[in-house]
Amino acid sequence: MSIAFEKLSAAIAEKCNPTVMGLDPLLEYVPEFIREGKTTADAIFEFNKGLIDAVCDLVPAVKPQSAYYEKYGAQGLDALRRTIAYAESCGMYVILDAKRGDIGSTASAYADAYLGEGSGIDCMTVNGYLGSDGVQPFLDTARKNGRSIFVLVKTSNPSSSEFQDIMFGEKPLYRIVGEHVESWGAANIGADGYSDCGAVVGATHPSQLRELRAALPHTFFLVPGYGAQGGRAEDVALGFDNNGGGAVINSSRALMCAYKKHDDAQNYKKYTRDAVCAMRDEINAALKNL
Amino acid sequence: MSIAFEKLSAAIAEKCNPTVMGLDPLLEYVPEFIREGKTTADAIFEFNKGLIDAVCDLVPAVKPQSAYYEKYGAQGLDALRRTIAYAESCGMYVILDAKRGDIGSTASAYADAYLGEGSGIDCMTVNGYLGSDGVQPFLDTARKNGRSIFVLVKTSNPSSSEFQDIMFGEKPLYRIVGEHVESWGAANIGADGYSDCGAVVGATHPSQLRELRAALPHTFFLVPGYGAQGGRAEDVALGFDNNGGGAVINSSRALMCAYKKHDDAQNYKKYTRDAVCAMRDEINAALKNL
Repeated sequence: MSIAFEKLSAAIAEKCNPTVMGLDPLLEYVPEFIREGKTTADAIFEFNKGLIDAVCDLVPAVKPQSAYYEKYGAQGLDALRRTIAYAESCGMYVILDAKRGDIGSTASAYADAYLGEGSGIDCMTVNGYLGSDGVQPFLDTARKNGRSIFVLVKTSNPSSSEFQDIMFGEKPLYRIVGEHVESWGAANIGADGYSDCGAVVGATHPSQLRELRAALPHTFFLVPGYGAQGGRAEDVALGFDNNGGGAVINSSRALMCAYKKHDDAQNYKKYTRDAVCAMRDEINAALKNL
Repeated sequence: MSIAFEKLSAAIAEKCNPTVMGLDPLLEYVPEFIREGKTTADAIFEFNKGLIDAVCDLVPAVKPQSAYYEKYGAQGLDALRRTIAYAESCGMYVILDAKRGDIGSTASAYADAYLGEGSGIDCMTVNGYLGSDGVQPFLDTARKNGRSIFVLVKTSNPSSSEFQDIMFGEKPLYRIVGEHVESWGAANIGADGYSDCGAVVGATHPSQLRELRAALPHTFFLVPGYGAQGGRAEDVALGFDNNGGGAVINSSRALMCAYKKHDDAQNYKKYTRDAVCAMRDEINAALKNL
């Protein structure tokens, strides 16, 4: 069973919305009225559930960031498990942002944990510093279960240039990693034209995003860094192909904490929904102007 | 409170043993008689506890590999939590092999999860592909709590050469990452001469191990790949300084599954203990021959 990113591409097309809502629930993001009298697990899950309920007709995918659940130990991981199951039950595409990476046998154990049958996770992020034999076990398990991965190529943070931009002859490291990603996926390209081995390319580096889009024609992009980190709609538009496909743009804090701008936590669902619509419309407008 | 690797160096000196026992408990490693009638969490913990009891007077440190606990979900993570607490209660130095790495705020969340007060973890492994601002939050939290980190520099797997050995002018990537590690730790060097920012350098690449030992004089090395992966005592000896310090050598499967060579699972503690003594003696002999 190998569907690569077809399911995500179809959901994006259906909702006319190439965005993913990041679910990075620091406890201080959870409105006081939800937290009151609840365990950490219940508080985080209730907030995530509310956010999913608010936008699941508008947004094709969610991306829980594993760190913000691991931070709260067993309680956080319980909230993560329930969040994944709930998002799946609402028909959303689930990307686990865990950036795992290890040597072969250990990579297999991670893949079993997150891409195994019944995990509810459609896709996870992987760190490729260890090379092919650290990535292949994730791809093998993903392929068996109709899932996909995103490998870190060019990240959105300020220091990403330190190693990722080092020039080896004519090419920076991120380009070399990107070309490996393109080749790792070549054996399994879906009907949407994209393989099951995608790439993480930050919105904060528009020229690299444009360069990589051209260089990696079968590689689906997960683009973080929109909004709070500084990436604009015209920047992220460079990550899409000529048909407006092949990329999904993440925003976390700006959507989850939209209510904080209005000092009106009770109506957090409405503000997140408004923020989702605004982001969708901005990106779609930028795509039309390309 | 900043002690860098002093605690580990002291434990190594006290036991005359620069090795760490990896705890990577695939369920099939756990002897049948321990598994019988137990939950996964209890079975894994009982096995780990037996291994720790068997060798804690001989071995200064344990290194649970997070993947093998995450693989078993909440049960596995419960076993990990109890294993860490038990190893700590036996006075062992605990290295969590989790290879986390992310952008700043997310790296902070991971650091809180594993290097926060009361975690029982002395040190964790970190993937530095994202650069300084992805590593610094781990170091900040480690420093606050008297802990340390190991950053992946040159890993032990066959494909590690794909990216890590690419030449940037005169220097391969692993050397550039290594020099960053040396500089990240420069602000906090312990009485043993080593900083709190160590490096992972695989036993399977002896010439690089020798090169990096010379180039990174204040960087403590975690050396995986001994035994099952092919690293020999004379190879790993190259990771030590002239006083036999500055490195710790990991072995997992060869120690945990020593009993399988004898088809005598009931006495697994004895076989692990024998294997630990043999490994210690081999490495100490190789150090004398340097």
